[in-house]
Amino acid sequence: MATADALRGLDIGLFGEDFLLTSEKSDDDLRAVLEVAEFFKSRYRQNRSGRLFETGLAISQFRDQSTRTRFAFASASALLGLSHVDFDEGKSQVAHGETVRETATMISFLCDVIGIRDDLFIGRGHTYMKEVGAALDAGVRESVLDARPAIINLQCDIDHPTQSMADLLHLKHVFGGDLDQLRGKKIAMTWAYSPSYGKPLSVPQGIITLMTRFGMDVHLAHPEGYELLPDTLDVARRHAEESGGRFQISHSMEEAFEDADIVYPKSWAPFSVMERRTASFEQGDDDGLRVLEQEGLANNARHIGWECDAEMMKLTKNGEALYMHCLPADISGVSCEAGEVSAEVFEKYRIATYQEARYKPYIIAAMITLAKFRDPAAVVERLVERDDYRS
Amino acid sequence: MATADALRGLDIGLFGEDFLLTSEKSDDDLRAVLEVAEFFKSRYRQNRSGRLFETGLAISQFRDQSTRTRFAFASASALLGLSHVDFDEGKSQVAHGETVRETATMISFLCDVIGIRDDLFIGRGHTYMKEVGAALDAGVRESVLDARPAIINLQCDIDHPTQSMADLLHLKHVFGGDLDQLRGKKIAMTWAYSPSYGKPLSVPQGIITLMTRFGMDVHLAHPEGYELLPDTLDVARRHAEESGGRFQISHSMEEAFEDADIVYPKSWAPFSVMERRTASFEQGDDDGLRVLEQEGLANNARHIGWECDAEMMKLTKNGEALYMHCLPADISGVSCEAGEVSAEVFEKYRIATYQEARYKPYIIAAMITLAKFRDPAAVVERLVERDDYRS
Amino acid sequence: MATADALRGLDIGLFGEDFLLTSEKSDDDLRAVLEVAEFFKSRYRQNRSGRLFETGLAISQFRDQSTRTRFAFASASALLGLSHVDFDEGKSQVAHGETVRETATMISFLCDVIGIRDDLFIGRGHTYMKEVGAALDAGVRESVLDARPAIINLQCDIDHPTQSMADLLHLKHVFGGDLDQLRGKKIAMTWAYSPSYGKPLSVPQGIITLMTRFGMDVHLAHPEGYELLPDTLDVARRHAEESGGRFQISHSMEEAFEDADIVYPKSWAPFSVMERRTASFEQGDDDGLRVLEQEGLANNARHIGWECDAEMMKLTKNGEALYMHCLPADISGVSCEAGEVSAEVFEKYRIATYQEARYKPYIIAAMITLAKFRDPAAVVERLVERDDYRS
Repeated sequence: MATADALRGLDIGLFGEDFLLTSEKSDDDLRAVLEVAEFFKSRYRQNRSGRLFETGLAISQFRDQSTRTRFAFASASALLGLSHVDFDEGKSQVAHGETVRETATMISFLCDVIGIRDDLFIGRGHTYMKEVGAALDAGVRESVLDARPAIINLQCDIDHPTQSMADLLHLKHVFGGDLDQLRGKKIAMTWAYSPSYGKPLSVPQGIITLMTRFGMDVHLAHPEGYELLPDTLDVARRHAEESGGRFQISHSMEEAFEDADIVYPKSWAPFSVMERRTASFEQGDDDGLRVLEQEGLANNARHIGWECDAEMMKLTKNGEALYMHCLPADISGVSCEAGEVSAEVFEKYRIATYQEARYKPYIIAAMITLAKFRDPAAVVERLVERDDYRS
Repeated sequence: MATADALRGLDIGLFGEDFLLTSEKSDDDLRAVLEVAEFFKSRYRQNRSGRLFETGLAISQFRDQSTRTRFAFASASALLGLSHVDFDEGKSQVAHGETVRETATMISFLCDVIGIRDDLFIGRGHTYMKEVGAALDAGVRESVLDARPAIINLQCDIDHPTQSMADLLHLKHVFGGDLDQLRGKKIAMTWAYSPSYGKPLSVPQGIITLMTRFGMDVHLAHPEGYELLPDTLDVARRHAEESGGRFQISHSMEEAFEDADIVYPKSWAPFSVMERRTASFEQGDDDGLRVLEQEGLANNARHIGWECDAEMMKLTKNGEALYMHCLPADISGVSCEAGEVSAEVFEKYRIATYQEARYKPYIIAAMITLAKFRDPAAVVERLVERDDYRS
Repeated sequence: MATADALRGLDIGLFGEDFLLTSEKSDDDLRAVLEVAEFFKSRYRQNRSGRLFETGLAISQFRDQSTRTRFAFASASALLGLSHVDFDEGKSQVAHGETVRETATMISFLCDVIGIRDDLFIGRGHTYMKEVGAALDAGVRESVLDARPAIINLQCDIDHPTQSMADLLHLKHVFGGDLDQLRGKKIAMTWAYSPSYGKPLSVPQGIITLMTRFGMDVHLAHPEGYELLPDTLDVARRHAEESGGRFQISHSMEEAFEDADIVYPKSWAPFSVMERRTASFEQGDDDGLRVLEQEGLANNARHIGWECDAEMMKLTKNGEALYMHCLPADISGVSCEAGEVSAEVFEKYRIATYQEARYKPYIIAAMITLAKFRDPAAVVERLVERDDYRS
């Protein structure tokens, strides 16, 4: 069986671990995620069951809005046979002064996996997930929890691994079905103008830290002042060096698009603004937050030219680079007056962006499987042998 | 096996189709829904499993309040082994300017069925469901979706098929267990007074278009100005002609009740008011909406005599017509000062209305089954052979 | 098989019954709940399946905030293979004047169990659950419901049986694994200061009525004016007499703590204040409610000395009594300025309180199992024979 064999050829360290940042995982770990995700996708297309749990519970906690990731998580849970409950802090007694440690423990009895989105404030989301993880570790150590749920990062301030891994799987398929064929391909991860403010940095950070691992030529471009977290730049540099890829930064969308095989133009807030935002938020400084928003929007407005339009696309390889977006995109003249991408370009690639998005439920299912099962190759074989129809 | 044999005798065209309007379905389609619903009901009573999905996902989207349909959908999903998630637009990024097409696609990866209620505005609900359906078709065609979820109409501006089909199954049981015994029976679908405004037209429209198909004598009665959608009147006329039944309209509750076997007195808003309401809503004309509400309530008040009370019931066949209601009813002196039905009449038929309601989960389960399985007779036989206990 | 044998030795009357108050259940009933809960816990630890339902539906209705009970109920449902839906009155048409009877019926088609929390008003919660129960009985009698869901009390104005039974199981484990070893142990159920107002009485009432059954020496202590419901005191007295235990009331935390094996210091509102609160609420007397809150907080403030601190703990048996709390606790200097327990004491027992909490999902799963299966010993044996892995 191809998937089982592929998994046996990998040195996988995901069992019993949370999936918070791709940069903490080995290349083999990531390859395993892709393999298992593809396996689930192929099973699903054949109407074959992917059920791995007789019973079990998946909890999601969204500290920010979500549609696609929310449903991707619910879909992945259903695929595996897990019940799904959303943890809504508003309905809980958390406001009563409970600690993260206590709340995390109290919801985790009989829980298999917790998916968390916490992406609004720099320095907060990843820290929160680590705190939850530490609480769960303590819970197991102290005989409070009968089993340790795995945490899946559904977007934090640093990374958005379910997105970037779905993006990687999309690229793998578009470019011939083999990660090695991404070697040398140029991807432009660029800022783009948006009339909204405070968008997380996790997507560009996730892309530059992940795509540099597989020998790609990653070009990050943004206006001055729209820097990403320095640590993620370091990681991208290191990955490029190790993989024989390339990582460069410029302040020109044109330069980034020049001869690119792939473009990923997307708005985000400057790291420094996001840092001040966290501080204002923690101090309950509503005036400060308002001032910051005005500043942010005014800043953005100075870079309204950073739009991915037909002219810009002509700069890319044969004028035919693959356009990517995590959706929803700010489309000029459609969802806003001026935005990240022209209607013409978006229309041309709309279906491609939907195809990109379709991988996320499978990626999440794969992450859960690899975190919860010691021998994924055997798991895959068992499913194939059982050969149950899904319906 | 009776159900399987009955299904084999029918020419069923429901596989792979959405269930939006009963008027789009053939008589055999509708008979199949009743057969499968009864099969599930009998299984449930015997504590036998109705599970048809190893894993899978059912999504509901309620753009209007709901208790019974919400739980009927959740119950049907559970019966079949589907996980259930409610799509709450408030928690999503839809406000960010996403199109119907994009949102529909984004929630539908790995989804088997989407139940939608969108009944607030004339010209909107059915259109919305068709837009979602078109998005899903495009998704499959463009390799975005690995499978096509089926849409079940949980109430739109035109029809309320899960209600009317549950009502039909109730009538079948009350009148001897055979649809043919409904032939010639007179049903009075009448307007009734309510102190509320803007109630959907989908129930009366659903009843007159469905019950005319089986040779019933359908009498629609309402005050002048409370017309239904012209198209639904045309359908009812055509159905009556084809089935050898009868369809007439009057402006007299008494005339409608005269010698009726069944009465279905229920408030609704006039079509023309609902049309103006849609226009005001689309223009964000809050003053217009308020004026319309005042007008609507004042209009209603002129017809406060349209109440189903004991006197009115005496007009019916032997004074013992079956009273029906989709619930909750506006009961005079109970849930409002003056309403659709007197407390005395409602009390006499309370249990009958609850029995009417109990069919809805089974109807929904049947609609899902027939939309998702090509050979429902084989599906039924497989369940019977497996003979699993539900608990 | 130990659990099956133990169950066969008991005279169990839980099948087909709601679980509203422990005081309505026999000692053998309660022993059975503990046995089945322990069985599920041990299965879970061995990654063995506890699935008892092929398909089915569990509904929860929370009329007050909840985190741990909400998740305990969802976890128990998942453990048994039941789908879970939360009934949110805000999204329903209940506001439209539906009766309890009608709503209860409408959500209960195909439902196996309904968990209800309704603890805010004295004289309301238990009454509501009985009304729901009567509606379900009527539904079965009148052929409206194809099966009768069981009601599980997730906290009412009188009792909190899923909490008190989890507490009892915790005590059983801490004190040697046998209920008989609790005989003669002194438990101090005492009021404690909190800066919040209107906390339910159900926990102290649940503890004094339950723990007196097993020969324990139960000492209830609270400031004057903080009386519990008289009926629950009567029950506690009777239980103590019948079991050879002891039940006394004092107005001294010190007296209660003196030589205690276990202490359970926890704030609650006075019964008389809660009664006036119900009246004000029913009359929509917002001013009255505000005055009452001020009064309540002022009352509490006069008893700020009722804190479980290190000095107080020194009074207990060897200064080492087991500290219990249903969580979240009001911890002085942590979640509030001055509260029920000092940070020092809470920190010492934090893990113990988490261990106490972990039993609740298993207790709920046991209550559901015993309400829904006539022969629980056979059910347990079947699970063991099947020997399925959970994942």
